[in-house]
Amino acid sequence: MTTIIHGSTDTICAIATPQGMGGIAVVRVSGPQAFDIVSRRWQGSPLADMASHTAHLGRVNDSRGHLLDEVVLTIYRAPHSFTGDDVAELSCHGSRWIQQQLIVTLLDAGCRMAEPGEFTRRALAAGHLDLAQAEAVADVIAAQSAAAHRVAMNQMRGAFSRELQGLRDQLLHFVSLIELELDFSEEDVTFAQRSEVVNLAECLQAAIGRLTASFQTGSAICNGLPVAIVGQTNAGKSTLLNALLHDDRALVSDVHGTTRDVIEDTVTLGGTLFRFIDTAGIRQSNDTVEAMGIERAFKKLDQSQLVLWVVDATAPVDEVVQFSSQILPHCAGKHLLAVINKTDLASPAAIEAALRPLLPAEAQVVSLSAKQTAHVEHLQQCIIAAAAMPQVDDDTVIVTNARHYQALCRAAEALDRVLSGLRDGLSGDLLSQDIREVIHHLGTITGQVTTQDLLGEIFSHFCVGK
Amino acid sequence: MTTIIHGSTDTICAIATPQGMGGIAVVRVSGPQAFDIVSRRWQGSPLADMASHTAHLGRVNDSRGHLLDEVVLTIYRAPHSFTGDDVAELSCHGSRWIQQQLIVTLLDAGCRMAEPGEFTRRALAAGHLDLAQAEAVADVIAAQSAAAHRVAMNQMRGAFSRELQGLRDQLLHFVSLIELELDFSEEDVTFAQRSEVVNLAECLQAAIGRLTASFQTGSAICNGLPVAIVGQTNAGKSTLLNALLHDDRALVSDVHGTTRDVIEDTVTLGGTLFRFIDTAGIRQSNDTVEAMGIERAFKKLDQSQLVLWVVDATAPVDEVVQFSSQILPHCAGKHLLAVINKTDLASPAAIEAALRPLLPAEAQVVSLSAKQTAHVEHLQQCIIAAAAMPQVDDDTVIVTNARHYQALCRAAEALDRVLSGLRDGLSGDLLSQDIREVIHHLGTITGQVTTQDLLGEIFSHFCVGK
Repeated sequence: MTTIIHGSTDTICAIATPQGMGGIAVVRVSGPQAFDIVSRRWQGSPLADMASHTAHLGRVNDSRGHLLDEVVLTIYRAPHSFTGDDVAELSCHGSRWIQQQLIVTLLDAGCRMAEPGEFTRRALAAGHLDLAQAEAVADVIAAQSAAAHRVAMNQMRGAFSRELQGLRDQLLHFVSLIELELDFSEEDVTFAQRSEVVNLAECLQAAIGRLTASFQTGSAICNGLPVAIVGQTNAGKSTLLNALLHDDRALVSDVHGTTRDVIEDTVTLGGTLFRFIDTAGIRQSNDTVEAMGIERAFKKLDQSQLVLWVVDATAPVDEVVQFSSQILPHCAGKHLLAVINKTDLASPAAIEAALRPLLPAEAQVVSLSAKQTAHVEHLQQCIIAAAAMPQVDDDTVIVTNARHYQALCRAAEALDRVLSGLRDGLSGDLLSQDIREVIHHLGTITGQVTTQDLLGEIFSHFCVGK
Repeated sequence: MTTIIHGSTDTICAIATPQGMGGIAVVRVSGPQAFDIVSRRWQGSPLADMASHTAHLGRVNDSRGHLLDEVVLTIYRAPHSFTGDDVAELSCHGSRWIQQQLIVTLLDAGCRMAEPGEFTRRALAAGHLDLAQAEAVADVIAAQSAAAHRVAMNQMRGAFSRELQGLRDQLLHFVSLIELELDFSEEDVTFAQRSEVVNLAECLQAAIGRLTASFQTGSAICNGLPVAIVGQTNAGKSTLLNALLHDDRALVSDVHGTTRDVIEDTVTLGGTLFRFIDTAGIRQSNDTVEAMGIERAFKKLDQSQLVLWVVDATAPVDEVVQFSSQILPHCAGKHLLAVINKTDLASPAAIEAALRPLLPAEAQVVSLSAKQTAHVEHLQQCIIAAAAMPQVDDDTVIVTNARHYQALCRAAEALDRVLSGLRDGLSGDLLSQDIREVIHHLGTITGQVTTQDLLGEIFSHFCVGK
């Protein structure tokens, strides 16, 4: 167990705004020497005279004293800043050249380049947020839909941390009572009523179960609800994917078996993020590469919650019916949308009539022409309706982070041992050990228990400048 | 002649930082209702109590009152802002979702989406900068090298405007004297000594000539110094371009005649921006498309200041010598670098010995293997040395804008008419007309003379948010 000690000794800088060219860009400097270093390049009123949270127009020079840019400097004095250290933010013209040179001149003046997530890591060290909240900062930035945004904002604001803290506090209370018994072991007293411990453990089990169960939803919210597009070769799957994505992401050709790799792309429809998975056309194939693609197609189909089965309206009805026996067994328990494509070339009526009796009652049939993008919007509406993601309101706690999910699963396993130990009348010292393990796993989420390696791993996925 | 009247009536907003995801992004709101509109979405201390140039942590809600993000709000009270209006800058988390939703909620609250360059256009209307300076804002943002940056910064800070203003003021003085003579025409007085007018016109001619002459340099600084890569098919031109650009921009294959289009890309070497132009391999071809490519190759060669002639070290010496008669006539007056490629496959000695006597004395020969990127750095050094761009210091005025160049050329033409009129003893009223034309053309550059159409055209090339 490593304790986090605060006190940044060096001063870091990074571009905080997105990469590229824009009207303005912001370079952030944080650390004990932030104001000294900026002063070395600053032409304007002295930083020493500036109150915290004030903005000042001035000039920044390069290392050789040439004017680099006219900037707005905003200063935040410690501890009233995001990182808890002195922070200077330079808002410069958004050319790549200026951004790059501004960093160069600050490095020359004594800054160090910030590592990914280092500003947030310093905020964590300063106690401005806990680990789960810090991780949520990255999730907030990566959010691509209303639901993903709301879940991440809730986590960043501490809803998840508070829930875990509550569970952990109750466990700590009980384990301390049990450990107290051990000190008095010769006297055979019982401070922690076993029935109460069982009650608590069962409540905890339910709470942790609720959280781990939310992970499937959380993952769909953050990574997109998986929708597999399957069907025979040349049914127009890639064309349909392009129509759904509004661009030419997938390679489309008239040659059967064009798509050999599984192509995935995400798009937000009706506020929900979908991950569309274009699979290889399914047919008997002697081509090894293609056969591997088909195997992957079935695997992707099995992992998806929603299946678009694309049928060629120009195909012989018998062939489609025969093919259905390959597809339908894989679709049990999933939302199935049968899409009869190429209505610009043939009427879908015969195929629809033949398919209906074969499909599950709740499956929908949509006829369209992906090539002419006719009725693609109707299909999008069906997809949105089929998804029916749970409503996420401002207080919903949903687990979206695989690390948190894993820690919760481990906590649940240890909790199972606690419960079976209670049933079997296990001794206090063994019981205490299992409870300590639950506490440990919950603590890894919010960062009460952590290691530098873990922190390094977590923050390495952040963007530089946050 | 249109006069610009200030007074923004509506409030505009836009994302000011580069597109994409980052640690933070900045949304700028400017106009008379800026503070009212932001207040409608703001949860924090009241905007009315905030002093100008101060930053405040708070929350922004969406239209339905849900928390959208925790942001830092910086306010600038009119007229002490870039645009001269009240300005609110919201520094939010840099997710695409938040940026988009922040704009949506501000639009719902009464903002209008800013047009490209509209913030700068308002600064122009407020008299905070003139037209040439406003145009330089876009150039500063687009600058890709030290020289381009410095030229644009000088222009933005007004060096070019001041030079033009000086010329224009002198002309205005003389034209007013000449026009005064017209009022006293019956008395045949001369307020403006013709010899002084001739002197001034000649000085002006020299000054304008200096400015127009700087345009070739200015264009090379901003758009890159054109470097043509030419040679026989399969000599490795595309591979060399890739090695110079450090990526796989050009399609490379072993098939003769792969490159049919002219591929251009820019890279900054030693602080100078170069525009490398990869041309079709030159050979006799019956393929119409390829023949067109070869024609374009020669055209590009003629427009370049620097030529890299790529020679295949494995090619027969006779063939290379014969081919030189096609290339060398196009290289007169240009810097020529003969690059003997594929030294990993054959020694360059024989070809170099055969070529030397055919090349101009100042031409250099570099042997390398583009495929193995051996000695590519040496070639880069030769290219930098051959370019020898003029030094641009903090006060150098160089014309980089085609619109300014055109206006200066027209002013020079009118000035020629003034001078020949003076020589021919032209009457004061005709002379005054020509001088007025010079003044007009100089005025279009700084914006003393302008039209809404021209302004619309200029600012349409700006990024939104500046």
